[in-house]
Amino acid sequence: MRQSQLFTKTRKEAPSDETAKSAKLLIRAGFVFKEQAGVYSMLPLGLRVQNKIVSIIRREMNAIDGQEVSMTALQDPELWKTSGRWDDKVVDNWFKTKLKNDTELGLSFSHEEPLTRIMKQFIGSYRDLPKFVYQFQTKFRNELRAKSGLLRGREFLMKDLYSFTKDTADLDIFYERAAEAYKKIYNAVGIGHVTYKTFASGGVFTKYSHEFQTLTDAGEDTIYLAKDKSVAINKEVYNDEALTMYKKTTKDFDEVKAIEVGNIFKLGTQYSEPLGLTFADETGKHHPVVMGCYGIGLGRLLATVVEVLGDEKGLVWPKAIAPFDVHVVELNPKQDSVISSGVRDLIVSLEQEGIEVLHDDRIDATAGQKFADSDLIGIPMRVVVSSKTVAAKAFEIVDRASGKVSAGDATEILRSLK
Amino acid sequence: MRQSQLFTKTRKEAPSDETAKSAKLLIRAGFVFKEQAGVYSMLPLGLRVQNKIVSIIRREMNAIDGQEVSMTALQDPELWKTSGRWDDKVVDNWFKTKLKNDTELGLSFSHEEPLTRIMKQFIGSYRDLPKFVYQFQTKFRNELRAKSGLLRGREFLMKDLYSFTKDTADLDIFYERAAEAYKKIYNAVGIGHVTYKTFASGGVFTKYSHEFQTLTDAGEDTIYLAKDKSVAINKEVYNDEALTMYKKTTKDFDEVKAIEVGNIFKLGTQYSEPLGLTFADETGKHHPVVMGCYGIGLGRLLATVVEVLGDEKGLVWPKAIAPFDVHVVELNPKQDSVISSGVRDLIVSLEQEGIEVLHDDRIDATAGQKFADSDLIGIPMRVVVSSKTVAAKAFEIVDRASGKVSAGDATEILRSLK
Repeated sequence: MRQSQLFTKTRKEAPSDETAKSAKLLIRAGFVFKEQAGVYSMLPLGLRVQNKIVSIIRREMNAIDGQEVSMTALQDPELWKTSGRWDDKVVDNWFKTKLKNDTELGLSFSHEEPLTRIMKQFIGSYRDLPKFVYQFQTKFRNELRAKSGLLRGREFLMKDLYSFTKDTADLDIFYERAAEAYKKIYNAVGIGHVTYKTFASGGVFTKYSHEFQTLTDAGEDTIYLAKDKSVAINKEVYNDEALTMYKKTTKDFDEVKAIEVGNIFKLGTQYSEPLGLTFADETGKHHPVVMGCYGIGLGRLLATVVEVLGDEKGLVWPKAIAPFDVHVVELNPKQDSVISSGVRDLIVSLEQEGIEVLHDDRIDATAGQKFADSDLIGIPMRVVVSSKTVAAKAFEIVDRASGKVSAGDATEILRSLK
Repeated sequence: MRQSQLFTKTRKEAPSDETAKSAKLLIRAGFVFKEQAGVYSMLPLGLRVQNKIVSIIRREMNAIDGQEVSMTALQDPELWKTSGRWDDKVVDNWFKTKLKNDTELGLSFSHEEPLTRIMKQFIGSYRDLPKFVYQFQTKFRNELRAKSGLLRGREFLMKDLYSFTKDTADLDIFYERAAEAYKKIYNAVGIGHVTYKTFASGGVFTKYSHEFQTLTDAGEDTIYLAKDKSVAINKEVYNDEALTMYKKTTKDFDEVKAIEVGNIFKLGTQYSEPLGLTFADETGKHHPVVMGCYGIGLGRLLATVVEVLGDEKGLVWPKAIAPFDVHVVELNPKQDSVISSGVRDLIVSLEQEGIEVLHDDRIDATAGQKFADSDLIGIPMRVVVSSKTVAAKAFEIVDRASGKVSAGDATEILRSLK
């Protein structure tokens, strides 16, 4: 894509009320637009990153037999009254609205209830189990404070998967498969090295659960990470019981700040019982279905990658989720047609191999502005094209993460991208 | 995909309050789930169809230089007060909600205002124009009545594109490009032959606009279609002025029912003026940006395809948007391992060529049930595999739309799919 055609531009300053490093950089680089506190629109570059994260998660959810659906935001109060979660005293972050006839509706913060109702139509027998259902869907959460940019959104895309099994043994098996899938996801998006499966409270769901916590000073959570990295425990449940379970003492742990980038819960029959989701076993006897839920907030995950990998110059994207693979920065375009044809040949040869190229062809930006913008946007590889590098048939190649500079022609660039 | 693993099942009856043929068939075939009036969740088969429609529309929007974004549902009242559209007396289908501090928020029914605000950050000069921005995003519309299934949703995915040009001449050029793109979309999804660009009222936007109207008795709109099909006029603007413009008389027209599957509007400076979206021309003089908007409701489009192509047996999908390409219906699976290996070979040879196969491997369904379900689900090609067809090395091939039966091996099936 030609950068002169891209409708977004970088900016020097983020809004003054924005304090999170991730939100500041994403706004300055033109990836997102702040509509209001906790509410961000995705602009073309941000949407490209989000779509790549979606593809990675979808691949891993399909690999553990997930079937994709798309449920609605608007929620029927009667359904949530059955489970006891309609009351604002029970769930304190509902957004609620009304039909013309004054019927109250909710905006979904999660989907246990509606999916359980859907599954009642399809699950009758043990032969219908297990089933695993997921979606990428917009959640609404009426957070009292939303000062952390995309790290705590009032509206955000979420991947939520729900498991339906005949007993806790099958739930346990899937729970471990889900945990493994989550690890693959964090590895793929570039934060696996600082993300730990963490023993945590079950919140409204169950006594215990697990969170995936990414170490960063920007984190709102406090966790205790074993010095040998073998165990992580959320502060909420960092007590004698947990220490005994893991056969550790307080001396074995460091206190660190972290961001929760995913969570997995064993729900048991908490929703299937009140909502009447049962199955008949081989003898015809009915049992409530055993459930689990598994969530990843996409906006928070994207922002966490920025918190962990971004530097003082701007965003630093891992290859797998970068908005483009290569940033071709053309110096002094138009003035020198020799350079332009050299650039054209380079871009064609990259795009023919499926490489996604952002081409900075702007004629109204200086070399310095182009390099600064390129650092801010954070595409993994920058290829600088000037009359000098065209003449030498060796483009300057800059690795965004390390800053390492090398030289090479199109063939060498392609080789290093493989 | 193995049908025995798919979590949805067909059902004999649709909910009694459902009257639209499209909603009845989509529910019975397990493509959608009715959450409440006008609010439908997409189940795996329905989501596959919707995703294919999204891909077709995305391709055509990119082809006319659209840049994709994803804006938010939650809306800031101040922004909409500036344009005069916050008041429920002006826009009668707002859903509104509140933050914890009692600040009112809206749920977007459209995105002229927020995108205009975004573009103020990026458009300053004539050199920044034209720009075309689109999204696939969930719209909320508080419809008084929602009795037509997916044809009139209270929550639905919409493609909305907005054009930003320096003058009406550039708007007119893009308006025609958008109209041509829309025709390609309706052709691709299988309703091009009964869809007409229709002269229509501009609603709240402008004096006139164009709708794309698909002929079907299920339509809520009345249009006048010229007997030679050269002109279509919505009843709202079927008057002497329109007839004079098209040099026709009432004798030239038939009155027909139709569904509006898209609309295109010339907005002019209606939003750019109050919101202050201007650009500097070559002389430095500022002008308001000239805008247009271009919408397609995905749920309605999907349901319209069903209204037009569905028959008494069920859904009938065109190839381009079918949930799968081929429905392999295996008779008496498990009892006969010879058939099973024959099925396996067939499916492998199809999937290796990128063909998407739904394999009815259910052991608890009769041949009659399988054929009825296959007709209901509506995959374009059914391949029946039995001990007889395996022995003869000629599978029975049934074309869903025509009912035409033929016989062939995997190679012949592949050839007919190309």
